[in-house]
Amino acid sequence: MKARKDTRQRLIDSACYLFYTRSYANVGVKEICDKAGVQKGSFYHFFPSKEKLTLAVLEEHFADFKDKIITKSFDPKLPPMQRIKRLMENAYLFQVKVKEETGQTLGCPYGNISAEMSTQNEVIQKVTDSFFAKIEVGFEEILKEAVQNGDIEPIDTKKTAIAMLSYIEGMMLLARNRNNPEIIKQLSPAILEIRIKPDADFNT
Amino acid sequence: MKARKDTRQRLIDSACYLFYTRSYANVGVKEICDKAGVQKGSFYHFFPSKEKLTLAVLEEHFADFKDKIITKSFDPKLPPMQRIKRLMENAYLFQVKVKEETGQTLGCPYGNISAEMSTQNEVIQKVTDSFFAKIEVGFEEILKEAVQNGDIEPIDTKKTAIAMLSYIEGMMLLARNRNNPEIIKQLSPAILEIRIKPDADFNT
Repeated sequence: MKARKDTRQRLIDSACYLFYTRSYANVGVKEICDKAGVQKGSFYHFFPSKEKLTLAVLEEHFADFKDKIITKSFDPKLPPMQRIKRLMENAYLFQVKVKEETGQTLGCPYGNISAEMSTQNEVIQKVTDSFFAKIEVGFEEILKEAVQNGDIEPIDTKKTAIAMLSYIEGMMLLARNRNNPEIIKQLSPAILEIRIKPDADFNT
Repeated sequence: MKARKDTRQRLIDSACYLFYTRSYANVGVKEICDKAGVQKGSFYHFFPSKEKLTLAVLEEHFADFKDKIITKSFDPKLPPMQRIKRLMENAYLFQVKVKEETGQTLGCPYGNISAEMSTQNEVIQKVTDSFFAKIEVGFEEILKEAVQNGDIEPIDTKKTAIAMLSYIEGMMLLARNRNNPEIIKQLSPAILEIRIKPDADFNT
């Protein structure tokens, strides 16, 4: 017999789904409670505000992302650039699964909420930024290893990491707009070639 | 003496600013009217709904984008890839100016509203998609010319165009999140190297 999920977790699951399929502002506490089968009064027992619930939602997405994408991809036994390739394959498969489950390609939950909320809510802005920073650090470590191994020429590993993240966020946004995960598959190969050279200056 | 802007245009300007600095859902008709100095009753004389106003807002952003970025960059006398370089320079300068004027780096108004609304409002989804498609066609024509001239090797020009657009949308999203237009300047050089090869298959 399956244990019944606790109330707090049901609220998080409900909000994860509703925010991800729609947007932050479009989903109210009442609807989150209704979907979770929880009385609105109990909500405030677990979360003092919608904002605080959102932080738990973003943590949940990160745990999911780590579990289904990062851990499967960033295998230290793989050559460094192969890990990034694996990441894109798993990100694609994840979006395919999301579409199977919801009918929609939903893209990156951090990118979505960042685009909507970053100028309006500093707490959400900081949490999305720290997610982006984690991904960047992950890419940067991989790129440093690839440079050390001689797999790629010396580059600005920090800026290249930000460039790779940008490319992913952009393809996620387009895949969401067009409800088409195949965009991720089609565009993925170019991520492996993105390089920002040391002291790159666009005006020379 | 400056002619006083007509009421319709003041409503559009007000909504352009409010949506762009915050989000679609966070801004109501009343606030748009207040900022424009227009009675709420008159609003519905010009626009039957907030959605219809939004279409006018997106047209206004496109006119601005064409005027301040596209026309200045896509000069047929320039070598094709130089036009894309120029586009990035002008996109950066535009974001610097937006920050000077508003205190914020606001990114791409189409990307922002797409991330927020594409799963919720089909009309807005279609308009943002047709904007993305226009940019793609612009890039594709440039890339075809570059291939014909022998400036770059044969590539899948359509997919490469989508890849370039994705890269821009992602960097705009990060620049907005971090309120930092310098991200655009730092990441721009790599756009010129993005290539999706014909029949690229990530699984080989």
